[in-house]
Amino acid sequence: MFNPKFVLTAMLAASVSVTATAEDVDTERHKVSISTLADGFTNPWGMTFLPDKSILVTERSGDIYWVSADGSYREKISGTPEVVAQGQGGMLDITIDPDFDENNWVYISYSEAAQDGGKGNSTAVMRAKLDDKKFTEQEVIFRQAPKYESNNHFGSRLVFSPEGHLYITLGDRYSRMDDAQTLDNHHGKVVRIWPDGSIPEDNPFVNDDNALDEIWSYGHRNVQGADIHPETGELWTVEHGPQGGDEVNIPEAGKNYGWPEITYGVDYGGAIISEDAVKEGMEQPFYYWVPSIATAGATFYTGDAFPEWKGDFFVAALKSSLVARLDLYEGRMMHEERLFEDAVEARIRDINQGPDGYLYLLTDQSDGAIIQIKPAD
Amino acid sequence: MFNPKFVLTAMLAASVSVTATAEDVDTERHKVSISTLADGFTNPWGMTFLPDKSILVTERSGDIYWVSADGSYREKISGTPEVVAQGQGGMLDITIDPDFDENNWVYISYSEAAQDGGKGNSTAVMRAKLDDKKFTEQEVIFRQAPKYESNNHFGSRLVFSPEGHLYITLGDRYSRMDDAQTLDNHHGKVVRIWPDGSIPEDNPFVNDDNALDEIWSYGHRNVQGADIHPETGELWTVEHGPQGGDEVNIPEAGKNYGWPEITYGVDYGGAIISEDAVKEGMEQPFYYWVPSIATAGATFYTGDAFPEWKGDFFVAALKSSLVARLDLYEGRMMHEERLFEDAVEARIRDINQGPDGYLYLLTDQSDGAIIQIKPAD
Ligand SMILES: [Ca+2]
Ligand SMILES: [Ca+2]
Ligand SMILES: [Ca+2]
Ligand SMILES: [Ca+2]
Repeated sequence: MFNPKFVLTAMLAASVSVTATAEDVDTERHKVSISTLADGFTNPWGMTFLPDKSILVTERSGDIYWVSADGSYREKISGTPEVVAQGQGGMLDITIDPDFDENNWVYISYSEAAQDGGKGNSTAVMRAKLDDKKFTEQEVIFRQAPKYESNNHFGSRLVFSPEGHLYITLGDRYSRMDDAQTLDNHHGKVVRIWPDGSIPEDNPFVNDDNALDEIWSYGHRNVQGADIHPETGELWTVEHGPQGGDEVNIPEAGKNYGWPEITYGVDYGGAIISEDAVKEGMEQPFYYWVPSIATAGATFYTGDAFPEWKGDFFVAALKSSLVARLDLYEGRMMHEERLFEDAVEARIRDINQGPDGYLYLLTDQSDGAIIQIKPAD
Repeated sequence: MFNPKFVLTAMLAASVSVTATAEDVDTERHKVSISTLADGFTNPWGMTFLPDKSILVTERSGDIYWVSADGSYREKISGTPEVVAQGQGGMLDITIDPDFDENNWVYISYSEAAQDGGKGNSTAVMRAKLDDKKFTEQEVIFRQAPKYESNNHFGSRLVFSPEGHLYITLGDRYSRMDDAQTLDNHHGKVVRIWPDGSIPEDNPFVNDDNALDEIWSYGHRNVQGADIHPETGELWTVEHGPQGGDEVNIPEAGKNYGWPEITYGVDYGGAIISEDAVKEGMEQPFYYWVPSIATAGATFYTGDAFPEWKGDFFVAALKSSLVARLDLYEGRMMHEERLFEDAVEARIRDINQGPDGYLYLLTDQSDGAIIQIKPAD
């Protein structure tokens, strides 16, 4: 059952330091200006823009902040759930309903402890109405099964399809990686539900008694990036692989993306996971990285601020402090550009396009920041 | 008119030093052994295997050598044409007829001086019958028009289509780059002829009085790599771009590949060639490199020696002493691996698959070599 944390400080406004100096950086197609919109966040993980251009930001330790559009002012959101803030777990992604203007629903993913004193944890998704700076009418609409004692691989990116389905990306929980190949659990899966938690009738396994009905695709390791292709409406995901083997996939209904049976990587420390990279009945990635860049969030760019980037897919990376731009043309992968490696020295957890057509990075540090990327003058 | 050079040394056998030590190198999917099969060539440019596994190698300065399959023995071929060995020009590519077993035709491309005392030069293609170590029945089957005073951008790769057409890739001659957009010349074109020099009836411009009938595709800069896709039969080309902007293209009949109207590069020295990378009516590359790797020869790998490389496209590079492996899957570009950067310190002009399924590199140095890549034990 939902147990909101009582947060006394939620109503206290806090002002933060914003780095005033912007840095201009040349990229292949655009000269950009990089500046800090807001900092002082503790390991921020996910962010989403509200229609008035203000921002909601999660901190992995459990808090969610509302941040004014210019970054100068923030308030803590009250009514957020208790999270298991251990290892890679905690308060994770956040997104708003496609009809937020009318219904005020906000969706969050987080690591949730087992109910009723049981052991373990897993990714849960809650929706709540945002009433000024307060969550109300909280409902848990999805719980990853089974709960399991691991602090790793929560997945957790949230993205709406054009038809209004909610996709939730779910990690393999690291030590349960073989579960990614079986359908009686939610480990290493992408699931698809309706925003109220109900199951779409055309989900691929609804008529299979041995498979969980929420499952959309399987054989994933730890999908932390997801977005909808702006023209095809397809789900694109970015999977944090083992050492060597980060992947972009375009998960289709009921298909198997291979983990851990096939991979282009080895496990951290160099252990061989699989000799195979290709197997009958398993899908190949759209694109993959060897060596790994430690992929995290991802977004298609659809704005007008950077015309030469329109339609490209941007992938944030943790290890190398970079953003990979995949230059796409008519569905083909034409070129990878690595952006900001020197300019941003931080683990980049998420990347989002703002309502202004600028790009916004979220740096996952003890002093994490929202970084704004806009055209240089 | 053809004027064979009288080569006294042609019949003299020369033995060469072969580096005995092989080096083992780990790549992403295969551990390979790299060794020198034969060296002591002066700027070798092109090579081709004969059915008995011996090799023909061109030297840009004008000679062609027959090399025994084990690399230990070589002889100069007599009856080769006079070439303009200046700048990037000279004796260039070489290939054999698909029916060589029956007809003994060998095809060579080279820089040919203007006839009858005129000025300038251009790429010509000759065929000749290989009679032991001698060219006979020499016929010039193609001459790039117009002849022009430039020592740069000859293109010159030769490749046969599955239907028996001969594709010839032709450079823009550097200072005539705008010609690549007009069809009354052969600058910056891929042409398609029959092996006797006649023009296929279904060439795209045969019914256009303002276009040369040999033209297959246009808007190219300097295509030095070409091969036929083993499954689709399509021509794939690799174009040495300006600074930033090397390209892989899949040239289709009559299409415009954009140079110099569109490019992802700038000219050497940093001058902007074009602000545009995309334009209506011009084709986008299949893949491109920024920064450039200085692409040269290319080959699809179809052998059994390296099963994980089957179907991949290998591109040799001059500047970075590397070979780029494009990991292809069902026509999609999934990953680029950069091979041999540390192991081979040389400009790599060409790459070929041997009849043994090994890969062979040709290093374009004053002491150039044939490098053999085979599986490590
Ligand atoms: Ca987001
Ligand atoms: Ca996979
Ligand atoms: Ca060749
Ligand atoms: Ca082009």
